[in-house]
Amino acid sequence: MLIVMNSDAEQGEIEGVVRAVESLGCRAHVMSGASRTAVGVTGNEEAIDSGPFATLPGVAEAIRVTKPFKLTSLDARPEPTIVDVGGAKIGGGSLAIIAGPCAVESHEQAFAVAEAVQRSGAQFFRGGAFKPRTSPYSFAGLGEEGLKILAEVREKFGLRMVTEALDESTVDLVEKYADMIQIGSRNMQNFTLLRRAGRSHLPVLLKRGMAATLEEWLLAAEYVMSEGNYQIVLCERGVRTFSQHARNTLDLAAIPAMRRISHLPLIIDAAHGTGHNYMVGPLARAGVAAGADGVMIEVHPRPESALSDGEQTLTLEEYERLVQQLRTIHAAIA
Amino acid sequence: MLIVMNSDAEQGEIEGVVRAVESLGCRAHVMSGASRTAVGVTGNEEAIDSGPFATLPGVAEAIRVTKPFKLTSLDARPEPTIVDVGGAKIGGGSLAIIAGPCAVESHEQAFAVAEAVQRSGAQFFRGGAFKPRTSPYSFAGLGEEGLKILAEVREKFGLRMVTEALDESTVDLVEKYADMIQIGSRNMQNFTLLRRAGRSHLPVLLKRGMAATLEEWLLAAEYVMSEGNYQIVLCERGVRTFSQHARNTLDLAAIPAMRRISHLPLIIDAAHGTGHNYMVGPLARAGVAAGADGVMIEVHPRPESALSDGEQTLTLEEYERLVQQLRTIHAAIA
Amino acid sequence: MLIVMNSDAEQGEIEGVVRAVESLGCRAHVMSGASRTAVGVTGNEEAIDSGPFATLPGVAEAIRVTKPFKLTSLDARPEPTIVDVGGAKIGGGSLAIIAGPCAVESHEQAFAVAEAVQRSGAQFFRGGAFKPRTSPYSFAGLGEEGLKILAEVREKFGLRMVTEALDESTVDLVEKYADMIQIGSRNMQNFTLLRRAGRSHLPVLLKRGMAATLEEWLLAAEYVMSEGNYQIVLCERGVRTFSQHARNTLDLAAIPAMRRISHLPLIIDAAHGTGHNYMVGPLARAGVAAGADGVMIEVHPRPESALSDGEQTLTLEEYERLVQQLRTIHAAIA
Amino acid sequence: MLIVMNSDAEQGEIEGVVRAVESLGCRAHVMSGASRTAVGVTGNEEAIDSGPFATLPGVAEAIRVTKPFKLTSLDARPEPTIVDVGGAKIGGGSLAIIAGPCAVESHEQAFAVAEAVQRSGAQFFRGGAFKPRTSPYSFAGLGEEGLKILAEVREKFGLRMVTEALDESTVDLVEKYADMIQIGSRNMQNFTLLRRAGRSHLPVLLKRGMAATLEEWLLAAEYVMSEGNYQIVLCERGVRTFSQHARNTLDLAAIPAMRRISHLPLIIDAAHGTGHNYMVGPLARAGVAAGADGVMIEVHPRPESALSDGEQTLTLEEYERLVQQLRTIHAAIA
Repeated sequence: MLIVMNSDAEQGEIEGVVRAVESLGCRAHVMSGASRTAVGVTGNEEAIDSGPFATLPGVAEAIRVTKPFKLTSLDARPEPTIVDVGGAKIGGGSLAIIAGPCAVESHEQAFAVAEAVQRSGAQFFRGGAFKPRTSPYSFAGLGEEGLKILAEVREKFGLRMVTEALDESTVDLVEKYADMIQIGSRNMQNFTLLRRAGRSHLPVLLKRGMAATLEEWLLAAEYVMSEGNYQIVLCERGVRTFSQHARNTLDLAAIPAMRRISHLPLIIDAAHGTGHNYMVGPLARAGVAAGADGVMIEVHPRPESALSDGEQTLTLEEYERLVQQLRTIHAAIA
Repeated sequence: MLIVMNSDAEQGEIEGVVRAVESLGCRAHVMSGASRTAVGVTGNEEAIDSGPFATLPGVAEAIRVTKPFKLTSLDARPEPTIVDVGGAKIGGGSLAIIAGPCAVESHEQAFAVAEAVQRSGAQFFRGGAFKPRTSPYSFAGLGEEGLKILAEVREKFGLRMVTEALDESTVDLVEKYADMIQIGSRNMQNFTLLRRAGRSHLPVLLKRGMAATLEEWLLAAEYVMSEGNYQIVLCERGVRTFSQHARNTLDLAAIPAMRRISHLPLIIDAAHGTGHNYMVGPLARAGVAAGADGVMIEVHPRPESALSDGEQTLTLEEYERLVQQLRTIHAAIA
Repeated sequence: MLIVMNSDAEQGEIEGVVRAVESLGCRAHVMSGASRTAVGVTGNEEAIDSGPFATLPGVAEAIRVTKPFKLTSLDARPEPTIVDVGGAKIGGGSLAIIAGPCAVESHEQAFAVAEAVQRSGAQFFRGGAFKPRTSPYSFAGLGEEGLKILAEVREKFGLRMVTEALDESTVDLVEKYADMIQIGSRNMQNFTLLRRAGRSHLPVLLKRGMAATLEEWLLAAEYVMSEGNYQIVLCERGVRTFSQHARNTLDLAAIPAMRRISHLPLIIDAAHGTGHNYMVGPLARAGVAAGADGVMIEVHPRPESALSDGEQTLTLEEYERLVQQLRTIHAAIA
Repeated sequence: MLIVMNSDAEQGEIEGVVRAVESLGCRAHVMSGASRTAVGVTGNEEAIDSGPFATLPGVAEAIRVTKPFKLTSLDARPEPTIVDVGGAKIGGGSLAIIAGPCAVESHEQAFAVAEAVQRSGAQFFRGGAFKPRTSPYSFAGLGEEGLKILAEVREKFGLRMVTEALDESTVDLVEKYADMIQIGSRNMQNFTLLRRAGRSHLPVLLKRGMAATLEEWLLAAEYVMSEGNYQIVLCERGVRTFSQHARNTLDLAAIPAMRRISHLPLIIDAAHGTGHNYMVGPLARAGVAAGADGVMIEVHPRPESALSDGEQTLTLEEYERLVQQLRTIHAAIA
C-alpha cells in the first residue's frame, strides 16, 4: 500500500501515519518529494485494508499497489531521486563521471589515475578492492589493503570512492573506507547482500544482471529499499546476447524505459558494456545522448599492463578527451 | 585475391589487370580510393596463383584474401565509401537523415510528411510501398500505386526516395520510381534478392537481420558487391534478445565494430530498433553519438492512425525537434 | 472467420458455405477432420458479419477469429494434420526419418547414402540441390543437375525426396523432380517464396527462423495455407542464443508448446540444431522423447570430405545405430 | 599443474607428492580414478616448475594446465565422477530422480509428496526451506522450520534431502539437517557461497546460471573444488533467450558438450527449465534421452494451491507416470 499525503501535510501528520503503519507490524517508508510525501508500506503478508489510513489527518489517499514494485516506482515518488554520495550528487540533471581503474593495484597506480580524474572535473573515483572473478585462480583484488589506498585517494584528491562489496563482511569493510557500495552484475540477485546493503548508511550502485529484465532489476533495488536504504543508483552494463563482437550488448533502451517506471537515477558502464577500449568512447557518448545520469569508465596509466580488464580500459589521455565530448553532448540535449 | 595497384598506376594499367583477371574466367572489381586503387577478384573456384599478377605493370602487390569478405573489407578499400543516392551523399562525415512514414498510405499523407522532412533539411524520404508483414492478413502496402506517389514526392520536394523491395519483380519496380533499394531484415539472407540488387544501378540500403552476426551481415553485402554494385549502406535496426522492454535491442557497438572491418557507411533505424516512439529520440541521439553516418526515422502526421508501425512513429513536431538535437550532437563529436 | 459445420453436414452444405464465402470476394478453406469440417475464411479486408453464415444449412456456428492464426490453429482443425508426401505420411503417431546428405554432390554419393537410408527403414531422403550459403563464394549446390540425381534416387530406392527451394523459379524445378519443398530458416519470412509454395501441389517443410517466435513461425505457415496448400510440416532447427557451444540452441519446448496451438506436424533437425556430429545423436533422441513427429538427419559416406556441413554429419554406421534408438524411444512414449 | 601418478603408484608415493606440493605453499587435490590417480595443484600465484615433480617416485608425468579448469576437467580425472549423497549415488550410469515440492510448506504437504516419491523408487527428495525470490515481498520459505520437516521426511522415508542454501549461514543450517547443498542459478557466481560450499562435507548441486556459458559454469564448480569438495553435480535448468513460450530455454546440447570436457555428473531441471507443467514431461524425457544422469522434478499434491512455482509442478499421478517413462528411455539408450 502507498499512502499519499496532502501536499501541505505536516511532519506530525506524516509521523502519525508512520505510527499507524508500525502498529500493524509493518514497515513505513517515508518518500519525500518536492510536491508531496508518500508513505510506502512493506512487511505485510496479506493485503491491508486501506480504509483506516484514508481517514488519518493529512492523508490525500491510500492506494493499493498492484505492481510488484512498491518503493522504486514513480507511484511512490514522482520526481527523480537525487543520490548523495559524500556530498556529491548523482541524478537530477547533472552528469556524473565515475572513473578509475578496474582494480586498485598499488598506491602509485591509484594516485596517477586519481590525478587525471580530478583534473577532468569528475567527482567520483572507482576502483575494485574485492573483485568477483570468473575463475578462482584469477587476481581477486588487494582486499582491505586496496580499500586503504582508496581512503588515501579520497583524502588527497577529494574524490568520492565507489567500490564493490561481495558479501556481508565486505560491506562492513566498504562502509569503513568508502562512499558508495557497488553491487556487481553477478550479485544482482544475491538477496543476502542486497538486504545487507539495505541496512547500510552508504548509497548503493546496483548493476544490472547480465540476463536481468528491467522488472527483476528494479525488484533487486526494491530489496535494498525495503530495508530502509533509498539511495540507489542503477547501472546498465550490457546484457548477454548472441551478438558477440562486444563482450556484452549495451541495452540503451533501458534508459528511456526505466525513466517511465522508476525515479532512481541510471548510469551506464561503457567498459563492461563493450569489453573493448575502442568501443568505450562511442558507447559512453551514446549513453549520455540517450539520457543517462552518468557514466562509469575504466582508466589506467598503462592499460596493457593492468591486472584485470586492461582491454576495455582507456589511457589517461583518451579518458580526458572523452570527458570533454560527454559534457558537450550532455549540454546539447539538456 | 586482391590486386593492389601502385598509387600512380595509370588507367591503362588498371585495365590490363582487369583483362588478365577476366581471361581466367573471373570477375574483376575495381575499387578506386583516394590513395590507391585495388582490383578484387571473385568467381574463382580455387585459389589463383598470384605470381603472374604481381608482375603486371602498375601492380604494387597481389594479396591472397583469407577472410571471408573480399570486397566489403578495409583491405579492399581503406577509405570510407561514400554512397551517392541521386546526387545526395551518405557516408564520409555528413549526417544523413532518412525520414518518412512506415508505409505510403495516400498522396496527402506522403506530402504532409515530405514537407516537414524537407523543412528539416533532410535529403532522404523513406516510405514503404511493399511491406513485408508477419501476418498474411495485414496491410501490405499500396504496391506500384505507392511508388507513384513517391515519384511525385521526389518531383515536388527534391528529396531522394528510399523504399523496400521484396523480390526480383519489386526491384524492377523500385528501379523505375525510386532512388535507393531498401532490403529489410527478414530478407538479409534472401540471396536471390541480394544478387538481383547487385545487378541494379541503384544504391542499396541493407538492414541487419534480427539475429545476424556482423560477419553474416557483411557477407550479405558481399553478395551485392560480388555482382558489381558497390553502393551499399548498412543499417543497424536492432537484434532480438531476451530483453523485451523494447521491440528489439539496438546494438550500437556494431558501429565501432563495423568501422574496424568495413569501408561501408552505417546508419541506424531507431524506429524498428526500439518499437516505441518515446524511445526513438533517445536512441537516435545515441546512434549519432556512437558515430553513425545517419539515422532512419518514421514520421507520420497522426501516428495514432497510421496503417502500420504507428507506435514507433514520431509526430512532425517531435521529428523536427529531434533533427535539431541530432545535428548538434553530430557537430559535437566531429 | 471460421465456420464450423455440423458433424453430419453433407458435402452439398459445405459447398454452399464455400459459395457464400466466395460471393463476398473472399477465399474459403475447407478443413476436413475426423469429427467435423470447418471452413476458414481469408481475404476479407474488414470483419465479416457472421450472422448470415450462422443460418446456412449444415452450419453449427460461425466464429470470429481473434488470434492472428486462422488456418494453422487448433480452432480451425482440432485433430493433428497428417501430411502426405508421395504416399508416405508425416504426423499422426508415426515417426518420420528424413535422412540424407546436406548437399547432393554426385550420383555415387547420393546412391551410397540412399542405400543406407532405405536399409534403415526410413521413407524420406533429403539432399540439397540449391544451398543458401552465408558467403557468395561457397559451394551453392549442383542445381538442376542435383535434382536429377534425386529423381534417380527416388526411382531406384522408392524414397521420397525432400529438397530446398530458394525462390519462385527453384520451386518450379523442385516441383518437377521432388516430393516435398523445403523452406529454410533464412527464408522463413520470404513472403514471396511462401506464397509461391502455397500455390504448389507439393507439401512444404517449413523450418523455423533462427530468431522466430512460435507466432511468427505459424504465421509463415499461415502464408502458405492462405494460398490453399494445407500440407505443411514444421521443423525446429535451433535458435540463436548466447549459448555457443552448439551452433544453435535446439528449442525442444517448442514441441509441446506448438502442440497446444496448432494441428501441424512438427519434426526436428538435429544436425543444424547442434552443428556437431557428436551432439546429433543425443539431441535427435531428445527430440523424439519430447514428442516430435520425426527427425531430419544429415548422413554422408565420408563426412570429413563433404562439400558442406561435414562436421554435423553422421557416418552411415552412426546413422543406422541412431535410427534403432529413435524407434525404441518412440515406442516407449507412445 | 597436474601431476599424474603411475597406475601402480602406492599410497606413500601419492602422499609424497602431496607433501611436495604443500611445501611450496600450494594445495594438493588428490583425484583418484579407476585407472590412475592425479594430483591437481592450486594456490600457486605463478607457474610452477614441473621438473622437480616429474622425478618424484610414482609420478608418470607433470602436466602444465593451460585451460582455465584444473580440477573439473577430464584431464584431471578421465572417468566420470560418481557423487555419493548419503549413500545413494548420482552419476556412473544410474538414473537419479530428485523430486519434491518447490518449497516445503507443511509437514502434511511434505509427507504426502515424499510417499509418492518413495513409491516411485526415487532416492532423492527436494524441497526448499530458503527460497531466493525475485521480489522481496514473496514467500521466502519456512527457513529452519522447513529444514526440520525435511529431516523428518528423511527419517521416515529414507530419502536423501536436497535443499538450497543462499549464503554462508544457511549452508551451516543445511549441513545440520540435509544431505546435499543446492546452489541456485542466481547464485552460480556468488563466490563467497561457492567457497563456503567447497569447505562443506556435503555434496553440492550446482545449477547453471541463466546466462552462463559452459566455461563459466565449470569455473563455478572449480571454485567449490579448489576448496577441497569434489562431490559436485551440475544441473542444467534452462537459459534465458528471446524464445519466451517457455520460462527458460532448456539447453540440452549442454549434456554432450559437458561430457567432452568434464567428469562431473549432470542432471536437468525440467521444472525451471520450462516453467509450464505440460512441458515438464516432454522435456524431462528429452533430458534423459540426451544422456542426463538424472532429473529434478517439482511435485505437489495440489499444484494449483502451491505457495510457489505451482504452474510448473506435476501432480502425484503425473509424476509417477513420468518416472515410468524416464526409466524406459534410460534403459533404451544404455
